[in-house]
Amino acid sequence: MRTIGAELTRVEQGTVEIELPFDPKLTQQHGLLHAGVISAALDAAGTYAGYSLIDPDASLLTIEFKVNLLSPGRGERFLFRGEVTKPGTTIIVSDGKAYAVRSDGPAKLIASMTGTMMVVRGREGIEG
Amino acid sequence: MRTIGAELTRVEQGTVEIELPFDPKLTQQHGLLHAGVISAALDAAGTYAGYSLIDPDASLLTIEFKVNLLSPGRGERFLFRGEVTKPGTTIIVSDGKAYAVRSDGPAKLIASMTGTMMVVRGREGIEG
Amino acid sequence: MRTIGAELTRVEQGTVEIELPFDPKLTQQHGLLHAGVISAALDAAGTYAGYSLIDPDASLLTIEFKVNLLSPGRGERFLFRGEVTKPGTTIIVSDGKAYAVRSDGPAKLIASMTGTMMVVRGREGIEG
Amino acid sequence: MRTIGAELTRVEQGTVEIELPFDPKLTQQHGLLHAGVISAALDAAGTYAGYSLIDPDASLLTIEFKVNLLSPGRGERFLFRGEVTKPGTTIIVSDGKAYAVRSDGPAKLIASMTGTMMVVRGREGIEG
Repeated sequence: MRTIGAELTRVEQGTVEIELPFDPKLTQQHGLLHAGVISAALDAAGTYAGYSLIDPDASLLTIEFKVNLLSPGRGERFLFRGEVTKPGTTIIVSDGKAYAVRSDGPAKLIASMTGTMMVVRGREGIEG
Repeated sequence: MRTIGAELTRVEQGTVEIELPFDPKLTQQHGLLHAGVISAALDAAGTYAGYSLIDPDASLLTIEFKVNLLSPGRGERFLFRGEVTKPGTTIIVSDGKAYAVRSDGPAKLIASMTGTMMVVRGREGIEG
Repeated sequence: MRTIGAELTRVEQGTVEIELPFDPKLTQQHGLLHAGVISAALDAAGTYAGYSLIDPDASLLTIEFKVNLLSPGRGERFLFRGEVTKPGTTIIVSDGKAYAVRSDGPAKLIASMTGTMMVVRGREGIEG
Repeated sequence: MRTIGAELTRVEQGTVEIELPFDPKLTQQHGLLHAGVISAALDAAGTYAGYSLIDPDASLLTIEFKVNLLSPGRGERFLFRGEVTKPGTTIIVSDGKAYAVRSDGPAKLIASMTGTMMVVRGREGIEG
């Protein structure tokens, strides 16, 4: 996330926000934020929201996620909010919303996400 | 895709393959291919597969996609295959599979995807 | 929905609730509400929420939906809430939540859904 | 499944087929097979495919599933094939396809599914 200029701007129990300034390097051919960036940032927000609820020695593995691209990613900056919908000791489910923020109007919802994560301990997570 | 070193290695009616050599810049903390890269490459393969079946003056907009991360992304190179499951004049559905390829063993399935696209004409697609 | 005893208990612009009393005929082998019933009721709630926002002469076709089963479906009755996340003239996206309701405690979230629908007019919808 | 007239017609390691004759009770207002029935049968096929690969004392819990409705469910009978895409000791992923079968032409793909299941032992599965 850091390599694309994203910043963690809010961390609470079960809720995390990531902000990202507009950067032409992150756009596709029409100047809109790339779907891959939107997805990766939503996945990150949902995963960090999950981390806010688990033991420091546990890790989270994303099992699957689904993204709906709702509106073009046009804005001065972007906000990605991840929230844990279902905490758990084995499976955690997060939902995410991505907003395009502009100084001259209200934020616009551009994408939504649902992701399922597994809580892993020790080497499990990187052995698969 | 080009900025991450990916190459379109097969294009047929309804089927497309993208290959990507291993690159440490595309990995997460454990040296595995990043989920965001896997998702973006699968989305691209599914979308290109759709483009192989539509008029040259039409465009495709991804409405939604779902990715299942099945195994760690560890390999010397990666293959992303997108295939159109359901062609259509308005809605196209593609499935994708991502494989980690190693010289010392069989390719391993690391992720699967289903994506839904809308066929758009003219400015529709970038106006949302 | 009527054949399983479900009732539309709230209809607003973009939000719909369906309630369903417990019925042993709708359970699986452990006495929990069957996943197929949960999914069908969530799909119905999301679709009705969409209908509350479109012209009376238009129809909605579900393109795809995803359900996360979060907790066992154990309750005296069940509430399914569908809300439109993204209205549109061509594509509408709804989210849904299913709750198990018990007289001796708070309602429990048992499932969540995201569904994508296409707005169709005339015969389109049934010709596919 | 039995209550809707479905029959298990093929069981192999990792692959299962369910067949269902047309029945007006299972249709929606246009005489097409109801999306809820399609989803439940696909979920069942994917789950049974998973059961063909696990210990007899283990159970499978569906964590989430996604269905794409591709064509109208019009046919004399319906075939639902579930296949395990990724076996595992904790998480199993299945894909499913639903076909409408007619005596006067080729079978038509009407829906696809991806489902994620967790392998559970003992009481885990019904305690949630």
